[in-house]
Amino acid sequence: MRRLGIHSFVWTDGGTQEGLEDAMEKSAACGFGIIEFAYLRPEKFDLERLAKRARALDLDIVVTMGLPLSADVSSEDLGVVRAGEALLSDAVKAVRDIGGIRLGGILYSAHTKYARMPTECGRKNSVAAIAKTADIAKQSGVELVLEIVNRFETNLLNTTAQGLAFVRETGSDHVRLHLDTFHMNIEEVDPAASVRLAGDKIGYFHIGESNRGYLGAGVVDFDRMFDALVEIGYARDIVFESFSNAVVDEALSLACGIWRDTWTDNEALARHAKRFIEIRYEEAQRRRATLARP
Amino acid sequence: MRRLGIHSFVWTDGGTQEGLEDAMEKSAACGFGIIEFAYLRPEKFDLERLAKRARALDLDIVVTMGLPLSADVSSEDLGVVRAGEALLSDAVKAVRDIGGIRLGGILYSAHTKYARMPTECGRKNSVAAIAKTADIAKQSGVELVLEIVNRFETNLLNTTAQGLAFVRETGSDHVRLHLDTFHMNIEEVDPAASVRLAGDKIGYFHIGESNRGYLGAGVVDFDRMFDALVEIGYARDIVFESFSNAVVDEALSLACGIWRDTWTDNEALARHAKRFIEIRYEEAQRRRATLARP
Amino acid sequence: MRRLGIHSFVWTDGGTQEGLEDAMEKSAACGFGIIEFAYLRPEKFDLERLAKRARALDLDIVVTMGLPLSADVSSEDLGVVRAGEALLSDAVKAVRDIGGIRLGGILYSAHTKYARMPTECGRKNSVAAIAKTADIAKQSGVELVLEIVNRFETNLLNTTAQGLAFVRETGSDHVRLHLDTFHMNIEEVDPAASVRLAGDKIGYFHIGESNRGYLGAGVVDFDRMFDALVEIGYARDIVFESFSNAVVDEALSLACGIWRDTWTDNEALARHAKRFIEIRYEEAQRRRATLARP
Amino acid sequence: MRRLGIHSFVWTDGGTQEGLEDAMEKSAACGFGIIEFAYLRPEKFDLERLAKRARALDLDIVVTMGLPLSADVSSEDLGVVRAGEALLSDAVKAVRDIGGIRLGGILYSAHTKYARMPTECGRKNSVAAIAKTADIAKQSGVELVLEIVNRFETNLLNTTAQGLAFVRETGSDHVRLHLDTFHMNIEEVDPAASVRLAGDKIGYFHIGESNRGYLGAGVVDFDRMFDALVEIGYARDIVFESFSNAVVDEALSLACGIWRDTWTDNEALARHAKRFIEIRYEEAQRRRATLARP
Repeated sequence: MRRLGIHSFVWTDGGTQEGLEDAMEKSAACGFGIIEFAYLRPEKFDLERLAKRARALDLDIVVTMGLPLSADVSSEDLGVVRAGEALLSDAVKAVRDIGGIRLGGILYSAHTKYARMPTECGRKNSVAAIAKTADIAKQSGVELVLEIVNRFETNLLNTTAQGLAFVRETGSDHVRLHLDTFHMNIEEVDPAASVRLAGDKIGYFHIGESNRGYLGAGVVDFDRMFDALVEIGYARDIVFESFSNAVVDEALSLACGIWRDTWTDNEALARHAKRFIEIRYEEAQRRRATLARP
Repeated sequence: MRRLGIHSFVWTDGGTQEGLEDAMEKSAACGFGIIEFAYLRPEKFDLERLAKRARALDLDIVVTMGLPLSADVSSEDLGVVRAGEALLSDAVKAVRDIGGIRLGGILYSAHTKYARMPTECGRKNSVAAIAKTADIAKQSGVELVLEIVNRFETNLLNTTAQGLAFVRETGSDHVRLHLDTFHMNIEEVDPAASVRLAGDKIGYFHIGESNRGYLGAGVVDFDRMFDALVEIGYARDIVFESFSNAVVDEALSLACGIWRDTWTDNEALARHAKRFIEIRYEEAQRRRATLARP
Repeated sequence: MRRLGIHSFVWTDGGTQEGLEDAMEKSAACGFGIIEFAYLRPEKFDLERLAKRARALDLDIVVTMGLPLSADVSSEDLGVVRAGEALLSDAVKAVRDIGGIRLGGILYSAHTKYARMPTECGRKNSVAAIAKTADIAKQSGVELVLEIVNRFETNLLNTTAQGLAFVRETGSDHVRLHLDTFHMNIEEVDPAASVRLAGDKIGYFHIGESNRGYLGAGVVDFDRMFDALVEIGYARDIVFESFSNAVVDEALSLACGIWRDTWTDNEALARHAKRFIEIRYEEAQRRRATLARP
Repeated sequence: MRRLGIHSFVWTDGGTQEGLEDAMEKSAACGFGIIEFAYLRPEKFDLERLAKRARALDLDIVVTMGLPLSADVSSEDLGVVRAGEALLSDAVKAVRDIGGIRLGGILYSAHTKYARMPTECGRKNSVAAIAKTADIAKQSGVELVLEIVNRFETNLLNTTAQGLAFVRETGSDHVRLHLDTFHMNIEEVDPAASVRLAGDKIGYFHIGESNRGYLGAGVVDFDRMFDALVEIGYARDIVFESFSNAVVDEALSLACGIWRDTWTDNEALARHAKRFIEIRYEEAQRRRATLARP
């Protein structure tokens, strides 16, 4: 991996400038090299100031988001699709302006428990919207990655294979997949095999436990996952994500169904996660080197 | 295990009398000993006729359901709670009248992606409602089991430990847990350990794959799960559940987020599931016998 | 896989012509397509008659063996090496004469618990001997595969990576590896990854449980193993192997350390193994097809 | 666990007083609280000096050994059995004299690749010898634990269930089992289940990888193993063991079949092992606490 990062929601609900800056300080203090923010509204935050803090702390910034239904590019309503394209375009520019390196998340549909089946027409609208956004992102020097998430958070791209087909259809070489162990645990047949299947098309990787709590206190087989990342020579970023009712705001808790405290001390959680990922990654590298050595 | 069954949604959307009867025939033809129905409205179906078919086919009937928000016993609105209690009471009686053996599912709250946190008051209402329902069920000769489901389908009982505490609070010896491997894979720290923790408090057990498709084509570690069931001497029923967009109706697909076809041939799926469960259960029994034999 | 077979030691100690013929009948009756024999001394058995029975039963014959210390081609004593080369040459011809398709096992050293370290000189002798044997085998239309076994049964080739290097050094395109899940469980860092590493260099594959008993009653992760075989498109043979003190002769039991009965009914064991391998292989194929399908 | 220790063969071949003292210094420097020695001949070493160093370094001493064939208490030859009993008695006293806390290993038979089946008579001799030794150990304030090892290192006790039956037959409350993950990986049906089966009868626990190399670079499922130890409330010692051709002497390498270097830097190995065990143990404790918390 290139750099190891952490999602800002471990630290803050993201509601205030102060909260975001505090999250950056803590992320850097724990030794992370990336902070991931949810979509930052330029009218609400002093982005210039955030960018400056990030540079000072040697933190890369990644922004992830999910579309609202009112700007769902997988809609059949072209007005809604246009609103989504505009929002994506603005988001790319905001990432560029803040000095961020990457835009990810559920960019191809709304982030919601859908109450309708996906449609072929909506899918085409989404492919076209992402293709356009990819051009803008490429010109802006911002990477574009699509997060594959579970069925309760989108209806369009739930599996790596669906994501790979979608990326192909965009015809763009600037779109990659954003995989996440929490979601893969619900949807994939064999998460490690999906990582090998996707190979170089993986542009970003989220590490989260099956119940969104402490790494290791769930069912995700991280050893096999890190083995797969080492086997494909994954050289991009990995970011840790965890949600607990103890810290983040109610809006996020509702969206992600966070009804209980999987932890209360976010600093202990973050330090554990960093150690967990680094140690197990190193062990995966030792396994790979050892098994191939006569 | 006592008997192995199958959920009727593998066969039918449950919309017509004919569909339900057909589901019974096919379940019996595949060798299952139980059919699980979703809540059967007495005004819509000829329950007597269903009961007669079940007896003729030597099929036990289990009914499972989730409450609607309008009859959510975990509400803070006492009118809604009363509606829920009435609905549960009616459901118990319908199960009794159809000759069913057990009522299960999300009986303690609505079956929905909640948009609010659970409350202490609502929880107490739910405990009281289930305690009352347990009395009615006991008198009716109907077992009562509470299904522990993932965060996207209820906000109240997501883990076995939560379920055990809830059962204790009802003060009833007639309430047991209804565990399900699909849900456990999302919420539990260690599903097999939770089975050992719950022990005799498990009253019913659903076998479903992590992505709701073919058994074995997901991440659930069924071998460890069957080992745990054998280790605790589980002697109650096991029922197979799988959903695909190929067969069931749109309403259910929307509720459970079934956006893709995990299978198209339900008979092949059902026969595979029966063989899968029986073989792996037998292997778990052999493991247990072998490891304890000097 | 091409064909599924069984080792004759499940049925017989291999001491008599009658025992071997009986093993063939039983293997065919259980539906296996290959029988594996230990080295057959031409002076002791009526090979022509065995070959005829095999053809009649549509059974392919594979012969596996380990060298004795007196004919150890990894010795530093050239006389001993020459004896080994002669023994290997005779074995290839015996396989050809019996209509067999393949010679495997510990052909590159003695089959013993060594009491000395391997030496560079002995290793070179072994490479040369196998290269020569490969030429003879190629001319004879007999496949040649080297079994990688655990440290207690040879000191030379314990891991797949060692085997791959050895095969490269022979310079022959007629030598492949014979992997075995029992041995891999002791020596490999990650058995499934070793299968992917070896890829097309795998010429033969033994399925055995970690304690040599019933498949599934040990720690081998067969699901991951079959996934790896499917992932590399393995199209050669798989043979089941199990030893119990209940059936085979004392000599073999001593050589392999079989001190207890892991089973007593060999027919039940064989039928279980066939079903186990076929079902799990089919499940691995379903996993592969499903995970790659958008 | 009470204390975490390390086997002296990670550091030294045990041939000299200086080597043993150096091993103690290094063990303590890495933070271990126990050092395990192979049988220490009183005539060869200055035991008093070793005991003093251990006290100064706050290191507990455990001694493990395997009997030679000439003193095999599982022999049918009573002279050999008597020699074994005398050797065991001397060993207990040597442990006492050095201030050690425990005698373990293959005390009930020879440590060898046997060339004969175990016999009922020999087994009885062994049970009686261990019962006598237990009395002496009890009087000496030395714990007595029997190591269950794989088939290539003894023919008598290869599984936990065999060990439990053997302990029962001794009639002593002073004999417990010494389990080892390396050996369990070869012999047990389900190592974690065996730990739960043995429960309080486990007196000592060896952590070793399946190929005796770096922890995590093999197939042992340590997470499940630590879960089992936490589940039974294991409160005794855990000791790390690893062998590589790089460091230890040829005699040991031959006995254990160590033909390759699984590591070369023993200090890196030891520090990794300590961290690995402590972190994974802590994670197992978190799992247990979390899964049981409503």
